[in-house]
Amino acid sequence: MALAARLGQCRAMTDKQINPDWVAVDAGADGLRAWAMQGGRAVAQVQQAGSNARDLTADGLRPALQDLTAGWQFGSKTPVVICGPLEGSAAALRAVPCTPLGESLPRASDAASPLYPVPGLRQKSPADVMQGGETRIAGFLALNPGWDGVICLTGPHSIWAEVSAGEVVSFQSFMSGELAALLRQHSTLRPALAQATIDMADFGAAVSDSLSRPERLAARLLAIRSGHLSGSAAEGAALAQLNGLLIGAELAAARPYWLGQNLALIGAPEQTRLYAAALEAQGAPATVAEAARMALAGLTAAYRLTEG
Amino acid sequence: MALAARLGQCRAMTDKQINPDWVAVDAGADGLRAWAMQGGRAVAQVQQAGSNARDLTADGLRPALQDLTAGWQFGSKTPVVICGPLEGSAAALRAVPCTPLGESLPRASDAASPLYPVPGLRQKSPADVMQGGETRIAGFLALNPGWDGVICLTGPHSIWAEVSAGEVVSFQSFMSGELAALLRQHSTLRPALAQATIDMADFGAAVSDSLSRPERLAARLLAIRSGHLSGSAAEGAALAQLNGLLIGAELAAARPYWLGQNLALIGAPEQTRLYAAALEAQGAPATVAEAARMALAGLTAAYRLTEG
Repeated sequence: MALAARLGQCRAMTDKQINPDWVAVDAGADGLRAWAMQGGRAVAQVQQAGSNARDLTADGLRPALQDLTAGWQFGSKTPVVICGPLEGSAAALRAVPCTPLGESLPRASDAASPLYPVPGLRQKSPADVMQGGETRIAGFLALNPGWDGVICLTGPHSIWAEVSAGEVVSFQSFMSGELAALLRQHSTLRPALAQATIDMADFGAAVSDSLSRPERLAARLLAIRSGHLSGSAAEGAALAQLNGLLIGAELAAARPYWLGQNLALIGAPEQTRLYAAALEAQGAPATVAEAARMALAGLTAAYRLTEG
Repeated sequence: MALAARLGQCRAMTDKQINPDWVAVDAGADGLRAWAMQGGRAVAQVQQAGSNARDLTADGLRPALQDLTAGWQFGSKTPVVICGPLEGSAAALRAVPCTPLGESLPRASDAASPLYPVPGLRQKSPADVMQGGETRIAGFLALNPGWDGVICLTGPHSIWAEVSAGEVVSFQSFMSGELAALLRQHSTLRPALAQATIDMADFGAAVSDSLSRPERLAARLLAIRSGHLSGSAAEGAALAQLNGLLIGAELAAARPYWLGQNLALIGAPEQTRLYAAALEAQGAPATVAEAARMALAGLTAAYRLTEG
């Protein structure tokens, strides 16, 4: 895989020589992020947007990382701890209820170099899977010891997870974020959604509407186009409606997860601010945490559990 | 537009010389269909799948038609009656409640040759538009004089229309069909949906589930992937669930349109059979009619209303 060719964004915190004693990697839905680590401290960070971690195999990861982190001095003996859906890692899923990271983190048996994939979590009924979310949750719990409540991990697939006494008890995934992206990129709504602004008043109205009549989603989404064609929609209204309708319907279905619960949102700021506003309007304020920061904290906690 | 190059499917009913005295055209969401007409009788038919009628302009239509209907003998004086979203025709929308075709059909003022676009219908509140559906409804009413009830036009955008005393009273559009296509073609569910079979028992279960909990759509759709990844889903289950969940949610929102009503479904057979099964299971049997046949009958009725 020509990772370098697909390089979307690449930043280093420093130009000094970088000698990590281990490397932390978050293979998230929005790309690949790597940190050069010295113990518990990140000395450099590199980021590649838009890659699909599902293409990565255990042995393909290290050359890909070498490409991505060109200035870093690390060899085949340097441990790599990675979270997210690495190919083949589905087998290693752990069943809830369980702690997000388990007791120890075994080395991948199929990799020539020391690679430590953090196992994802699975739920039997309703059947569900998270891969990467467990590490963000672990990071959040490392930074907020003893925290109990419900964590919503936003993203293309958002996950509502019930956390109690340090364990993930149950969770449920929604594809609202992916639906929003599909509709913006590929649907007949595309011309209406070619804007960057989200009007927060319109967003709030759409959330409230969708929360009370979630079944009308496929009709209300189409009405975005009618509003656009008739020229009656203001700038920022269409994107506000798209997000509001999808998040509103998600809140309607996830009600048992947020009603009267202690809440935290983990995600990218542009998404968590929408979920936070929607929940706030329902009288359910949430703590907001940044996904990358939680992933780093979780990977650091996972590193401490590595074996051998 | 290189219509010939995009030719998907082309059939003539006969090899004899074809001399239409007028041409009927249905610019539907699934392609372009044209009939060589002698009075009320279709003597030949040609069809092009996958074209997007929204690209067609009044003056671009005739050369495109000449390409498509290579064997037909018709000139610049031959009237063409067309339904569907011809570019620029949005201005000609008629407001409901009204008869599907109006009193007379004026010639397009911006076309050099005699072209008669059937105006679509618009509804002020909730804002909605149909372009092409009015002609299918007119065809259905021509074949079923005096029929009163609710007509559901299936398609990428399905439309539920209340018909009373020969008029379209109100209607509502849903993008369920387009959502199904987006999810099959572009989403992370794509691998799970790469099948052609629909298990009707699984379909029925998904409809019923979605009708009672329509807000869970974004979670249940994602569960299709979990079922596929775990290998627990049987052949035909995933596509059945996709369609069942979307149609179930649509039925939940369209309930006032079908509950206790006299019902007709107009569409492509593979879609109407799903809607018919879903409605039947709710104790709401529907008459089923084929979209192309209704369009032809409607265009014939429209031709009788042409002016000049």
